[in-house]
Amino acid sequence: MSNGTLILMRHGESEWNASNQFTGWVDVALTDKGRAEAVRAGELLVEHDLLPDVLYTSLLRRAIITAQIALDTADRHWIPVVRDWRLNERHYGALQGLNKAETKEKYGDEQFMLWRRSYDTPPPAIDADNEYSQVGDPRYAGIEVPLTECLQDVVKRLIPYYTESIEADLRAGKTVLVAAHGNSLRALVKHLDGISDEDIAHLNIPTGNPLRYDLDENLRPVTVGGVYLDPEAAAAGAAAVAAQGNK
Amino acid sequence: MSNGTLILMRHGESEWNASNQFTGWVDVALTDKGRAEAVRAGELLVEHDLLPDVLYTSLLRRAIITAQIALDTADRHWIPVVRDWRLNERHYGALQGLNKAETKEKYGDEQFMLWRRSYDTPPPAIDADNEYSQVGDPRYAGIEVPLTECLQDVVKRLIPYYTESIEADLRAGKTVLVAAHGNSLRALVKHLDGISDEDIAHLNIPTGNPLRYDLDENLRPVTVGGVYLDPEAAAAGAAAVAAQGNK
Repeated sequence: MSNGTLILMRHGESEWNASNQFTGWVDVALTDKGRAEAVRAGELLVEHDLLPDVLYTSLLRRAIITAQIALDTADRHWIPVVRDWRLNERHYGALQGLNKAETKEKYGDEQFMLWRRSYDTPPPAIDADNEYSQVGDPRYAGIEVPLTECLQDVVKRLIPYYTESIEADLRAGKTVLVAAHGNSLRALVKHLDGISDEDIAHLNIPTGNPLRYDLDENLRPVTVGGVYLDPEAAAAGAAAVAAQGNK
Repeated sequence: MSNGTLILMRHGESEWNASNQFTGWVDVALTDKGRAEAVRAGELLVEHDLLPDVLYTSLLRRAIITAQIALDTADRHWIPVVRDWRLNERHYGALQGLNKAETKEKYGDEQFMLWRRSYDTPPPAIDADNEYSQVGDPRYAGIEVPLTECLQDVVKRLIPYYTESIEADLRAGKTVLVAAHGNSLRALVKHLDGISDEDIAHLNIPTGNPLRYDLDENLRPVTVGGVYLDPEAAAAGAAAVAAQGNK
């Protein structure tokens, strides 16, 4: 018997996914496609009889609304909600707002992939007065807003939060839905599956497709890598994420 | 200086508001008009620079989604959320699902108004196996689901919750948004304004129009009755609620 079930869900397509811009902590909305992905995610939860007892989200609209739509579809809109900035997407520094293809062309393949997928090399810091900086945003009152982050930075803020907060619900046997982002979920999967700093570069998480982890008594995954509720869509979606910048 | 600000918001028009049916604990969706009312409520919050720090909702979709839309419109979608069944609408007993005009015609004006507006006379209890009963609904696991309620019953469940939970946030100086229902908000306004058991019969709360209460150091209203953010729409909306059953 498992010790709680963890469901990871990346938000549906956002406006800047669609326009191929680096997003990070910029709080963009979902597209109509993204909202449809959220409905589909909710249908998948019902089809798999996987009904969350509690929801954790980032402080960003695209994760919050994806979860709301999916849970409303699954008739679980009433479960408790916890929101925390530590589930936010990786801060993309000075790249926030830039077009991915143009950035790749300007800086070259190697630099582009280093910024996107290296474990410990952050992009250049954003200026605090840049229109896409989050310095001064009231939702981050009381925390030091990052000016850029590498994936390692995300691991350092996210995993302590996961072990202190989310694991308590898992130990209580709950089914926990985490609605978050490509890179915050990569950080969590790295922790769950024990993926090396090098190998995590090759992991991509598709939008709007719930990823289920059944956990053992030590809260380690019963199946390494978890199980996507829609495996075919997951394979296609991960390939699309990997190909970003080629558009 | 006030001690926190309370904003009461009745959900936007629901499908059963539109079809003139008694709703109670039945979890119906918003209409397009209801969603538009929620957007307008969010715009009113922004226009009045009244930005909630925390949200309380019932466990019913029409309040949850109204709040989500209003807060998303006001760029406050990220605030903490607390949901509790004690903010639910009054349980309408065996009337749940019935058409209001047909009920009025069948039972007569006096009985109809007694069920709708008397303080201590509940409608007949619903059968537990009625399709509109909430017995067995997983969201109410651990509580004794009511089979009918009068307004006094709502006061008895709601006011202790308000004083234990919501008042703590108000004492901390927060701006608190409560997204709830016609009768659960009538119960709360009765408490805030010290309205008698008789006079509360004449109070009607319109949909989707935030009602602001600034509170003094004893958490009593600075202005009795509060202030609707859109006073003209409030007057028209309350008249429409009072006229239900005439359609």
